Amino acid sequence: MPAPLQTAVVGATGYAGFELARLLTRHPRLSAPLLLRRESEDSSKAETLADVFPHVYGGPESPLEPFSWSKLKNAGVSVLFLATPHEVSREMAPEAIERGLRVIDLSGAWRLKVAANRKVYSFADEDSTVATALMQRAVYGLPELRRAEIQHADLLANPGCYATSVILALAPLVCGGMIDRNHDVICDSKSGVSGAGKQPTAKTHFVEVADNFSAYSVFGHRHTGEILEQLGFAAGQLIFTPHLLPIPRGILSTIYLRLANETTPQQVEEAFRSFYSGKPWVRVFAQPQLPQIQFSLRTNFCDIGLTLAPDGKRLVLVSCLDNLLKGAAGQAVQNLNLMLGWDEREGLN
Amino acid sequence: MPAPLQTAVVGATGYAGFELARLLTRHPRLSAPLLLRRESEDSSKAETLADVFPHVYGGPESPLEPFSWSKLKNAGVSVLFLATPHEVSREMAPEAIERGLRVIDLSGAWRLKVAANRKVYSFADEDSTVATALMQRAVYGLPELRRAEIQHADLLANPGCYATSVILALAPLVCGGMIDRNHDVICDSKSGVSGAGKQPTAKTHFVEVADNFSAYSVFGHRHTGEILEQLGFAAGQLIFTPHLLPIPRGILSTIYLRLANETTPQQVEEAFRSFYSGKPWVRVFAQPQLPQIQFSLRTNFCDIGLTLAPDGKRLVLVSCLDNLLKGAAGQAVQNLNLMLGWDEREGLN
Amino acid sequence: MPAPLQTAVVGATGYAGFELARLLTRHPRLSAPLLLRRESEDSSKAETLADVFPHVYGGPESPLEPFSWSKLKNAGVSVLFLATPHEVSREMAPEAIERGLRVIDLSGAWRLKVAANRKVYSFADEDSTVATALMQRAVYGLPELRRAEIQHADLLANPGCYATSVILALAPLVCGGMIDRNHDVICDSKSGVSGAGKQPTAKTHFVEVADNFSAYSVFGHRHTGEILEQLGFAAGQLIFTPHLLPIPRGILSTIYLRLANETTPQQVEEAFRSFYSGKPWVRVFAQPQLPQIQFSLRTNFCDIGLTLAPDGKRLVLVSCLDNLLKGAAGQAVQNLNLMLGWDEREGLN
Amino acid sequence: MPAPLQTAVVGATGYAGFELARLLTRHPRLSAPLLLRRESEDSSKAETLADVFPHVYGGPESPLEPFSWSKLKNAGVSVLFLATPHEVSREMAPEAIERGLRVIDLSGAWRLKVAANRKVYSFADEDSTVATALMQRAVYGLPELRRAEIQHADLLANPGCYATSVILALAPLVCGGMIDRNHDVICDSKSGVSGAGKQPTAKTHFVEVADNFSAYSVFGHRHTGEILEQLGFAAGQLIFTPHLLPIPRGILSTIYLRLANETTPQQVEEAFRSFYSGKPWVRVFAQPQLPQIQFSLRTNFCDIGLTLAPDGKRLVLVSCLDNLLKGAAGQAVQNLNLMLGWDEREGLN
Repeated sequence: MPAPLQTAVVGATGYAGFELARLLTRHPRLSAPLLLRRESEDSSKAETLADVFPHVYGGPESPLEPFSWSKLKNAGVSVLFLATPHEVSREMAPEAIERGLRVIDLSGAWRLKVAANRKVYSFADEDSTVATALMQRAVYGLPELRRAEIQHADLLANPGCYATSVILALAPLVCGGMIDRNHDVICDSKSGVSGAGKQPTAKTHFVEVADNFSAYSVFGHRHTGEILEQLGFAAGQLIFTPHLLPIPRGILSTIYLRLANETTPQQVEEAFRSFYSGKPWVRVFAQPQLPQIQFSLRTNFCDIGLTLAPDGKRLVLVSCLDNLLKGAAGQAVQNLNLMLGWDEREGLN
Repeated sequence: MPAPLQTAVVGATGYAGFELARLLTRHPRLSAPLLLRRESEDSSKAETLADVFPHVYGGPESPLEPFSWSKLKNAGVSVLFLATPHEVSREMAPEAIERGLRVIDLSGAWRLKVAANRKVYSFADEDSTVATALMQRAVYGLPELRRAEIQHADLLANPGCYATSVILALAPLVCGGMIDRNHDVICDSKSGVSGAGKQPTAKTHFVEVADNFSAYSVFGHRHTGEILEQLGFAAGQLIFTPHLLPIPRGILSTIYLRLANETTPQQVEEAFRSFYSGKPWVRVFAQPQLPQIQFSLRTNFCDIGLTLAPDGKRLVLVSCLDNLLKGAAGQAVQNLNLMLGWDEREGLN
Repeated sequence: MPAPLQTAVVGATGYAGFELARLLTRHPRLSAPLLLRRESEDSSKAETLADVFPHVYGGPESPLEPFSWSKLKNAGVSVLFLATPHEVSREMAPEAIERGLRVIDLSGAWRLKVAANRKVYSFADEDSTVATALMQRAVYGLPELRRAEIQHADLLANPGCYATSVILALAPLVCGGMIDRNHDVICDSKSGVSGAGKQPTAKTHFVEVADNFSAYSVFGHRHTGEILEQLGFAAGQLIFTPHLLPIPRGILSTIYLRLANETTPQQVEEAFRSFYSGKPWVRVFAQPQLPQIQFSLRTNFCDIGLTLAPDGKRLVLVSCLDNLLKGAAGQAVQNLNLMLGWDEREGLN
Repeated sequence: MPAPLQTAVVGATGYAGFELARLLTRHPRLSAPLLLRRESEDSSKAETLADVFPHVYGGPESPLEPFSWSKLKNAGVSVLFLATPHEVSREMAPEAIERGLRVIDLSGAWRLKVAANRKVYSFADEDSTVATALMQRAVYGLPELRRAEIQHADLLANPGCYATSVILALAPLVCGGMIDRNHDVICDSKSGVSGAGKQPTAKTHFVEVADNFSAYSVFGHRHTGEILEQLGFAAGQLIFTPHLLPIPRGILSTIYLRLANETTPQQVEEAFRSFYSGKPWVRVFAQPQLPQIQFSLRTNFCDIGLTLAPDGKRLVLVSCLDNLLKGAAGQAVQNLNLMLGWDEREGLN
């Protein structure tokens, strides 16, 4: 048996970073990940992961140490996970690549190829040579669509949680040329609060969220660009509207579209089954059952269900996933598995 | 000052019926409502409303009595509210009308003019002469659209909660001929659990609802017919999808459509402001603010907000209301006010 | 009818302050309250209450203005409500009293007579002559215990929410000398999140609170002193433990004690009924029914229930109230009513 | 490696039964459990576990079959889990024992040795010879207290969820003779809704539970007898009060007592550490940190924290666990491990 691989995580004290640290710690082919803390990070006095998340008391010790490149080198790290704000990822990824590390970045820093789509991030280094080069080299890490590229990636941009739920629901139809492009594709998505991060804000205050529900960033959410780029839609052809659910985690996207040709429910379902055959982390539900947020919670599954109108054209898709797993940390581990040539289920059951 | 009017409520032990009983009890122009209980109803041993809802201890005594027509007569009841299952309303309304009462029915029994739309209810008396006649005489009680008819109604069909939220959001555009009918109107609605009634079911079990979110009745919800009929849409032109939110009450509908002509945000907002001018129970939000479920909770308001895409055509509407008030009991009182020629705000502040 | 009285509120943008502003606005014997904002306050750009709480759109305009003493004077304010942090109340109350205003303070600034109890607040002006004098002049505003003093108060210290729920549950037994002082009185209290204020913190983040429950400040909560002082207990005789409930509002206290003499359930209930006779804002529940948080939510009631063990000595009390109403703003209005010689129910139904 | 052991579960369609089926399915030393459905059980049309809990789609097939003794025999079952109502367990356990099976019963059927304590269950077979004999033979399966007996049990009574949380918190002090028995021990416990079972009732309706909190069964809960018997308390020495939390799962017990002698915080903590040394499923928290419900959720841990008053005598304990795991299914697997001489952590990480 080969020596276990050494990974490191920057940002393990956030929600997605914590899930990632837990997954990597239990992964059968990895040593315990090095957990590194940036100075500016919250919980700067925490010495172990259990100081921030007492949930993991009694498990393996997970020390949190101040970040330094030399620590990475000394520990023999070969893959670096960045669970950091996007501006931090923009800063750290180039040096990591330069130092020969493979990087899996969970932020939005390297996901968008089209400059116009990147404007929503206002990257400080937008025009730099290094960033421009890296931007094109980065691989959008959606395993169900880009398995081959992922295997060779050294800068892997882990997809957005909303984007994953929408793209996976639409990909079989897009790839099959089954969508009537004369009609809008409407993606009405709803997410739990952990998607907004661990930083306390007015938006995440319990009293503001509980007993409430709201739409936000209409026509302006950052994940829209990912969806358009990955599916090959023009900006005017798809509407994405996120909403905030009064639950800690989980995403459900309800997607509306018209098929190009009259189709039977069996044909549509078959298109999904065929597309996702051999892809273990997508579950296609048998009609008429639809996925619910609870079903995929705390798993790496993306669940997809569908209902076709009697006219055989108007289609409603429902797509669910756990925003911290298939929408973040789980997908990152799935990508790691592919990058290393392992079974993509390793460490995720 | 004229003598206060006597009303009666059948079904005050349900969620909407309870809100109705409370509103009528506090209404300045009404005596305390007679609260009548059908034998088959739950809580058959309850003697007062406080036995079922201890919330109202210490307020005015609200006895619950077994239903009989003679009680209604002896008490001088002139308006009868039915907060009953639709099949009970189908049975009771004809006799009530026959006895000279004006009826405000909160169920779906009398809302649908088109036989095809009524099929979802499978009314036992669908083909009876009496029901057919009453069906045409019934007035759909959406005050913002049918004020004149409501004033003279003797059988008032109080609208569905989802239907109210969708119709009020679309009415200004429909009336203004502003919608491009070549594109689907998508109504993605989300409701709190009280909309499913007080009867315990697997669907309303706390553990099934909490930390969850789900779509249901896709292409098949009973409120769809109301929306189509009131707005003059054909079945294929509008999609309505309800979802279950893990909150006790409140509805938010996100509605997607294309305008017939390129329009400015100001023009669209102005269309709404103009349409709802003088209509006190609809609040049009100033862009870019959107309503949230909390804002209209425990009020009779329907809140409407809008966001127009840069192309001036694709429009997203957000409509919120409290399903038990503007979506049920509050609207019923608003209708009562209109039927009696009173200010429609009476008893609702 | 006399001219309506003019009040002012500092801190209307917090949760309790907002409830207070709403109650005062609807109070039949008051003009609209002046709403004043300190410079350091959040939402400093808000111009009306609806900018902070869109819930009140469409109601009476409620402008928010920067605080100044001259504004108070020009508006003819006679009663000033402070819904401010305790250190702000310590600073503002002396000047307000000096200027002839009557002050109702919702903070903990003036509640504690015993210096040892005040230590938990570390007041900067603890040793000043003015503060010491005011401290003794301040009246603890629990209307069910101190009606007479309240009528003449010029500095009214509105009680803490937890303290209100505990003191009201124990007062009838303490006053009746019914408690066995050789045994501990245990007060296990649970509160919704709005009690922690509107400032976003790690403790109020939705993801930290939802699906969770926790004890905090064991043997060290600031409200303990109020309970001890008002009931005449020594520090060692009563334990108060607060917990955080995953709900927006409401408090339930479960209280355990031994009676001095063997007693029947009827006798204990009668002691409560007799004590609270003529006190409209406490509801004593008939055994075996116990209050629940929902029952008193959005009311000014404190609900009390009791269960006596078969031994006739060990007693469990359950006490519920809405922490923002009877636990804060509602009680403040009840106190205002008493200070002005009005019915204590005015403006609270 | 020995052949994997065959188990069977009756009642896998309930909440605890489902968790149990999942744990057994993943247990490294077991074959897939046989899942058997009684005729009277809900979901009688379900053919696999995924039909009832779509959460497990895509995992191993878990067929649900009608119960028969011959099926158990043919499959070579040696341990039978009963996740059934207590009256069903009373009926099935004797025959199972008779047939040579070892039984792990998750109900309250066989937990209570003292006839007076069993009265709360009104067992139909209370006076039968068989039941009386079995009752004495049954072992109360709390591994941290009865490891030796459990190894040899053939009828194992898996403890109640509340009882586990209270007994584990008190056991070190009871065993050390550290409690002052002249004072009441107060156990104020709070549980999530799954503890009430999957059957929809008024008590578990989302609208009744959400935004609410309530005490119930004061001086009368069935788990009280377990606590008294296991700890050797007389009925009058300990009060146990359960409450219903608006969360799906998790229990927190706050426990109040007086120590017999003045003690330091270090001494008390050391008593716990020493008692739980080598017992992997109890985590003793270092002062001043207290456990919260989230920390042990979805684990088999019971978490215990403590705070001692400055007087060195009055002690507050906080004990948390997941009612479906350490409070039910997880503990059942822990007991299975001990009964078979395995490491008690097997299959529980």
